[in-house]
Amino acid sequence: MRLASFKNSEKLKKQEFEARLPALRAELLELQNSLRQADFPVIVLFAGVDGAGKSEMVNLLNEWMDPRWLINRAYDRAMDENAEQERPVFRRYWHDLPPRGQIGLFLSAWYSQVLLGTVAQRVSEYQFPRHVERIRRFERTLAADGALILKFWMHLDKRGQRKQLRKLESNPATAWRVTHTDWAHWAMYDRFVVAGDQIIEATDVAHAPWRVIDGADHRYRSMTIAEHLLEAIKIRLNSRQPTSESRAYTPSPVNWLSSVDLKKSLSKKDYQRRRDRSQGDLNLLCRQAKYQKISSVLVFEGWDAAGKGGAIRRILRALDPRTYRVIPIAAPTDEEHAQHYLWRFWRHLPSSGNITFFDRSWYGRVLVERIEGFARPGEWQRAYHEINEFEQELAESGIMICKFWLHIDQDEQLRRFEERKTTPHKAWKLTEEDWRNREKWADYESAVNDMIQHTNTSHAPWTIVPANDKYTARIHVLETACEHLRNTIGGT
Amino acid sequence: MRLASFKNSEKLKKQEFEARLPALRAELLELQNSLRQADFPVIVLFAGVDGAGKSEMVNLLNEWMDPRWLINRAYDRAMDENAEQERPVFRRYWHDLPPRGQIGLFLSAWYSQVLLGTVAQRVSEYQFPRHVERIRRFERTLAADGALILKFWMHLDKRGQRKQLRKLESNPATAWRVTHTDWAHWAMYDRFVVAGDQIIEATDVAHAPWRVIDGADHRYRSMTIAEHLLEAIKIRLNSRQPTSESRAYTPSPVNWLSSVDLKKSLSKKDYQRRRDRSQGDLNLLCRQAKYQKISSVLVFEGWDAAGKGGAIRRILRALDPRTYRVIPIAAPTDEEHAQHYLWRFWRHLPSSGNITFFDRSWYGRVLVERIEGFARPGEWQRAYHEINEFEQELAESGIMICKFWLHIDQDEQLRRFEERKTTPHKAWKLTEEDWRNREKWADYESAVNDMIQHTNTSHAPWTIVPANDKYTARIHVLETACEHLRNTIGGT
Repeated sequence: MRLASFKNSEKLKKQEFEARLPALRAELLELQNSLRQADFPVIVLFAGVDGAGKSEMVNLLNEWMDPRWLINRAYDRAMDENAEQERPVFRRYWHDLPPRGQIGLFLSAWYSQVLLGTVAQRVSEYQFPRHVERIRRFERTLAADGALILKFWMHLDKRGQRKQLRKLESNPATAWRVTHTDWAHWAMYDRFVVAGDQIIEATDVAHAPWRVIDGADHRYRSMTIAEHLLEAIKIRLNSRQPTSESRAYTPSPVNWLSSVDLKKSLSKKDYQRRRDRSQGDLNLLCRQAKYQKISSVLVFEGWDAAGKGGAIRRILRALDPRTYRVIPIAAPTDEEHAQHYLWRFWRHLPSSGNITFFDRSWYGRVLVERIEGFARPGEWQRAYHEINEFEQELAESGIMICKFWLHIDQDEQLRRFEERKTTPHKAWKLTEEDWRNREKWADYESAVNDMIQHTNTSHAPWTIVPANDKYTARIHVLETACEHLRNTIGGT
Repeated sequence: MRLASFKNSEKLKKQEFEARLPALRAELLELQNSLRQADFPVIVLFAGVDGAGKSEMVNLLNEWMDPRWLINRAYDRAMDENAEQERPVFRRYWHDLPPRGQIGLFLSAWYSQVLLGTVAQRVSEYQFPRHVERIRRFERTLAADGALILKFWMHLDKRGQRKQLRKLESNPATAWRVTHTDWAHWAMYDRFVVAGDQIIEATDVAHAPWRVIDGADHRYRSMTIAEHLLEAIKIRLNSRQPTSESRAYTPSPVNWLSSVDLKKSLSKKDYQRRRDRSQGDLNLLCRQAKYQKISSVLVFEGWDAAGKGGAIRRILRALDPRTYRVIPIAAPTDEEHAQHYLWRFWRHLPSSGNITFFDRSWYGRVLVERIEGFARPGEWQRAYHEINEFEQELAESGIMICKFWLHIDQDEQLRRFEERKTTPHKAWKLTEEDWRNREKWADYESAVNDMIQHTNTSHAPWTIVPANDKYTARIHVLETACEHLRNTIGGT
């Protein structure tokens, strides 16, 4: 109950403020410049009571620092209130994250919905923990990757808020800033403060701490926040990045791949019959999904030459080209590289009933990045959990997730590599890297088993597809996609 | 009048189609692979009569080629009809362009609005040329940068369309594809064809030619389009990139910079008085602009150390941080580098009454890129015209554009460089590059004069700001921004 008993008292004299300001600004600029070389972003969030100076603080930091390396992100109130319409809700916050070396200043942002919703009693006691959990997940995921997260609750007590609003109203230059909504909020002050206390308590964690700032005196609050910011960035720059190797790694006790029956095959006639039927079904289901705005994510992983492309094309054939995008995942671009590894997948999520095919995916983190050492052990080991949370977030927002591992054995891969080598229009598909990966078959096999073991969740289950026979594989994929979609839609 | 007199007649026998298909697919795949190394994108647009196979063609190309290097872009009809709401309209087409080495398949896209609008008589005879000009500009700009643009009009005669729609309706698997809208369009067939003819005539140019394809027989149309595509890409890959050095370069006859009075100065007291007044005015004007959804683009160019950042910060202070973004322009990211040079500015355009500050801008093309040789002479010489068209596009969509050149003389620059060198928190701002640029003062001076001469248009005029005195410069910028905004809003 930090807020309910809070009384405004802090003040900073003009003289002292002006004496300290030049050095502070110089330090902020220097620090910002050092930060540009750092391998982490700084995420600063301002929330709190109307009139306590949130917007002013963002403007002031833009004035004191170099705005070229600051990213301001605020969201219209209308946008916040309609946030449920965008699915998943957190997509835009992910999209707007500052890259490493930069500072993002966020106004309310991912706290807005739960805060206003709790005050207005749109968010029930039952829903509250879900909202909070989503926030905690988001911040934990970013912090684990090194993001420095600072949250400021700018506060006024009840009398202080009224005083502040009246003061703004009495000055013609600032009167516009006080709206009916502000007074309506003031009338709900007590509820607002209770909600604020609940949210702060639930989300005040070491890697993303809240600081309550006395917002009555503009000099005090500005100086205090700027100094906190300076201090926190300085400490982080001078300390080694937390390695967060916390999550112990448990190799899979199950060999998922060994139990796949690769001997299955299908006659051309049966294949064509089942293909045509499934494509027809899928077309109908996708139209229903589009109508119900159920989006889908289809993930294709598998051995090199296992037939991911062919399987994807057999699905595309059934679809309206207006509704799908195929996203090939190769090395990240430099914009992607400057962000959390999940950022580039958030970018391509489907909306309003559309479908995204990922030809390879975020599972690269626990496959190629693990094996080639592009991710440190701590990083890929905690990725299982992060990926599960990511997929849970999508599933909760109503996205259907289908994940396929296309499985072939080593002999079949060799046969296909040889065939590619000798077929002119396939030769380009075979690279040195394919041969190198092949040598690491055993490593990949463990990694795949671990991946399936740790990420085969009820909201995003894996389908292991026996793919030695291409007909069998394609039908398996088509029919599984139909079945999942049918279950999601709740149709027959 | 190609379409009005068109009769469907072409057919391709199944036997022949199947005989030619394997070689075609192999060639398409090989070609697509060669294309990936090329320094141009391929832009394929499908338009035409409903039922003539536009969507099917996109699906088929996804099946025949590698969908990982294809980009499909279709826009909902509702989106097309509301396209006027997005300003500028072409932003999404720019956003969706394929990078160099890839193929973009567009369904109707930038032709949809003028086509449907003309048929429905929403686009008047008076507006038609404006729509067409916008399309021509877009395609010309892309083609000049090397994009290979191919446009297919898939056609059916009036009986053919009715037959096709009935055929689709009679098959349960395809009946869903025929809607009331399709029949409504069919009823307007004659008008549709007249509009199609007008549009094709107006936009059939050598660098973006139309081909009318007989769409009655699915084998004929598929084979014909795929072969055209293959042929056109092959020819382009084997020919040297067109250099398009067409635009002769005219050095500016006027020395714009020499006429600037750099001796102006302002007392601190006058500065503060005028600053406070302008910031108040600007705040009010920006709120009006936000309300009226008038967006603004403010471009800051100038000599190194001329005070661009300081001038921007004095404006920010007057604004609501929810409404502005400051975009610093440095070297392009690799995603940006794979696109037309204007692409990365389209990305950051403001919408719905917001403001984007460009700290340096697209004028880099005719300044640093010209002087450092990053752009070939033909490229920067035609850039003046391209930039004028780009800005015209923004202005026509209701965006206010303010462009500032902050001008100082060589002595003042030296004084500021020295000051930076000795001030700890400013030292990082001074780089080797600043000193190198300084040695090229005369080259830059000509380039700046040429830039102002060629891009000082009525819809996007330059303001040359005397900036030896910082107070004078900031007031000049603030007051100019107010004045422009006031004129745009049409207020007092």
